[in-house]
Amino acid sequence: MVATLPVNAYLANHQAERLADLCEFLAIPSISALADHRPHMHSAACWLAERLQRAGLKNAQVIQTKGHPLVYAEWLGKSGAPTILIYGHYDVQPVDPLSMWISPPFELHQRQGKMYARGISDDKGQILLHIQALEALLRNNGSLPVNVKVLFEGEEEVGSVNLMSYVAQHSKDLAADAIVISDTAMQECNVPTICCGLRGTVGLELTVHGPNSDLHSGLYGGIIANPIHVLAELLAGLRVEQGRIAVPGFYDDVVELTSVQRARLAQSLSDEGWQKQTGVSQLAGELEYTAQERLSIRPTLEVNGVWGGYQGEGSKTVIPATAHAKITCRLVPNQSPERIAHLVSADLKRRCHPGARVDVKLDKQSSSPWTCEPDHPVLRSAAQALERAFGRETIFNRMGGSLPIVTSFARELNAPVALIGFAPPDANMHAPNENMGIDTYELGLRAACYLWYELANSQFVNRKDVKNDR
Amino acid sequence: MVATLPVNAYLANHQAERLADLCEFLAIPSISALADHRPHMHSAACWLAERLQRAGLKNAQVIQTKGHPLVYAEWLGKSGAPTILIYGHYDVQPVDPLSMWISPPFELHQRQGKMYARGISDDKGQILLHIQALEALLRNNGSLPVNVKVLFEGEEEVGSVNLMSYVAQHSKDLAADAIVISDTAMQECNVPTICCGLRGTVGLELTVHGPNSDLHSGLYGGIIANPIHVLAELLAGLRVEQGRIAVPGFYDDVVELTSVQRARLAQSLSDEGWQKQTGVSQLAGELEYTAQERLSIRPTLEVNGVWGGYQGEGSKTVIPATAHAKITCRLVPNQSPERIAHLVSADLKRRCHPGARVDVKLDKQSSSPWTCEPDHPVLRSAAQALERAFGRETIFNRMGGSLPIVTSFARELNAPVALIGFAPPDANMHAPNENMGIDTYELGLRAACYLWYELANSQFVNRKDVKNDR
Repeated sequence: MVATLPVNAYLANHQAERLADLCEFLAIPSISALADHRPHMHSAACWLAERLQRAGLKNAQVIQTKGHPLVYAEWLGKSGAPTILIYGHYDVQPVDPLSMWISPPFELHQRQGKMYARGISDDKGQILLHIQALEALLRNNGSLPVNVKVLFEGEEEVGSVNLMSYVAQHSKDLAADAIVISDTAMQECNVPTICCGLRGTVGLELTVHGPNSDLHSGLYGGIIANPIHVLAELLAGLRVEQGRIAVPGFYDDVVELTSVQRARLAQSLSDEGWQKQTGVSQLAGELEYTAQERLSIRPTLEVNGVWGGYQGEGSKTVIPATAHAKITCRLVPNQSPERIAHLVSADLKRRCHPGARVDVKLDKQSSSPWTCEPDHPVLRSAAQALERAFGRETIFNRMGGSLPIVTSFARELNAPVALIGFAPPDANMHAPNENMGIDTYELGLRAACYLWYELANSQFVNRKDVKNDR
Repeated sequence: MVATLPVNAYLANHQAERLADLCEFLAIPSISALADHRPHMHSAACWLAERLQRAGLKNAQVIQTKGHPLVYAEWLGKSGAPTILIYGHYDVQPVDPLSMWISPPFELHQRQGKMYARGISDDKGQILLHIQALEALLRNNGSLPVNVKVLFEGEEEVGSVNLMSYVAQHSKDLAADAIVISDTAMQECNVPTICCGLRGTVGLELTVHGPNSDLHSGLYGGIIANPIHVLAELLAGLRVEQGRIAVPGFYDDVVELTSVQRARLAQSLSDEGWQKQTGVSQLAGELEYTAQERLSIRPTLEVNGVWGGYQGEGSKTVIPATAHAKITCRLVPNQSPERIAHLVSADLKRRCHPGARVDVKLDKQSSSPWTCEPDHPVLRSAAQALERAFGRETIFNRMGGSLPIVTSFARELNAPVALIGFAPPDANMHAPNENMGIDTYELGLRAACYLWYELANSQFVNRKDVKNDR
């Protein structure tokens, strides 16, 4: 543990530069989903590689992929110290509806202590924060307390497909003792938060096939198993009352948390809070768990889309030949995406009306659930660093969402992952007016400096026997 | 009863002219649904008025409406004889997919004894058949056995809205002792058929409202009553096994037919036949009724469309704010569209998950069921005429579909309606390669001549006490 941060004075003297730096980086509209923005993706990658080099890292490079490029750099000057891989992404979400932005999304504006711009929280702000922290240490001290590899991608918002294959193919080059990712949100503003669980995900698309072609519902109504109706029965039958999933075997592999483990997980909003935030008249789901628990430690099955027959103005009296739905399940330890897909698919086929047929197509992008014990040495060190910067106790939470790259890193590099996110809970990460508090950014920057000292002193290297990932 | 048709020789000598006449009329692409075809609708109406005048009818005129025009003509030269209103429509269905037509849809082509063109069966061929029959009698005999009013519309394929208000406003001008409509199909080829029942219809559109806005299903999955799931439960709960409708009170007003009445209704296809025609692996519905009965004398509830959430490529993990469905019910005597709409709506609201809300919007275009007793004197006379032309016994059937204008005529003019259709069962009325046999057309033409003699001799006038419509 370092008593005070040796770069405090340096950091205090360079805040204006950091802001100018952010302005420049956030001005590049690096929207990965839109083909028109391909040149901006290239510019952002080049800007980053140049910036890493200027920060004092070595071997900075833009790595071409089948999609948007990766950016890599390293500093390996501390022989014997642990090596940490820092991951982040320089691509951002689209900005529509543009009219809802108070200031232009690709201009950094400050209002009432907050910075507004697309990417300030997700994730360009958080990766620049790490670069600036490394630069401060290198300029001030001439070295880092640990060895560092930095890997940024430009396709996180579109599925990370090329990154995942790169990681699988270059696991030796990327070998590290731990992986640090700052791409999540804090539970409350300026309350240091480490995410120690992500749900897995598996998606299915259903097509119910009925008659050969669309039929007139006046002339054929009453003798045909209407595919929309068959679909409705199939979807309705996936649940029993109170939201419990009815698919036989669905909960078989779920690891129930102990009451101690449940008590340790932070509750962000009360049930009333969740109800208010979503505007529903009543929450749904398994009543024996809190809303926060249903959102994080319990598996779910949600219908994401449904369509079939006539959807236009007025009426068209048709019995459609087919009807469709998309489903995703969120998984918790130890559920496997393949097994859950198989169980759901088998249940649908078993229950399908004999006058129709259901085809189930598996979505290629599935991911396993991931968890990490809060008392893993890496997380303890990270928590310590956060507490020193923010002056408050670190809390551990689990997220309902999935970050497939986390499982991929944990598996391919066989190393623990620390999800240390600095985004505020109301960051509007995928919405207009994305933001981050100036104080949050500055405290996060200091936490990122402390982090390397804490990890250098931690006893975690070669402690891979400690259960971290599955 | 006339022993032989006094116009037989005339008809035999003018077949080529009739064909040329059909060619000319069918060449006008009078598609009412497509705005681009408005000039053709006008041409078709003018062509018809001129043709009626030329046939010897009086007072022929094109009547403008808010939509496509009506065409009217009359021959009222037989004082003391009954007056018959003939209704039909000169508009046709769109022709897509055009590539599926063997010959161009607006050119009359003959192949293997059949005539092919859009409108040859539905309904331009059937109305020209009536005009040519009246013309033959007037030219050959100088008079008709009955008085005739002719009313054709150009909006049958788009809901007959303007015709219905015209009939309501001009019931005195249109006053008649019976209404004859040739716009239905024969049960089997050249087997004379009178349709003595149509189902009513009522439509509803459902919207399930859940959270304030679309939510991320990873971050919110497990606590929200997903509107798609709520909708699926509502739709699934509208039926019990075997297709019986579960809405309380739905069957309360249904008039059960006696076994004698059931036996009198013609069965067109066997259950196996319906299964083969629709390509389903098994029929659905109420097993205590034959497929033909389920299609005609039993009420139904069909979901015609469903939509909500993400419907594109790949996956988008969303819990949508709303989900939607369109439903229509087909009604039988004595069900009322208003009461059924109320019952279904109340059932949906009662069953809706407390974490969501369902709004139900009533479709404006509803219609009551209509039936007519096969032993009504008008139908007996019509059956006699058909049998004389076709040489086979007339069968009585009921249709699963709805013709709102039939209830409208019966109610506004307080007169019996005879649905005497000449379209073959495989006419492809709303599909490519619409057709009618040349022999069917010629036999139908003769039946249309016999009809006026039979009705002139019938004792039905002032027999309005006989139950015909409800």
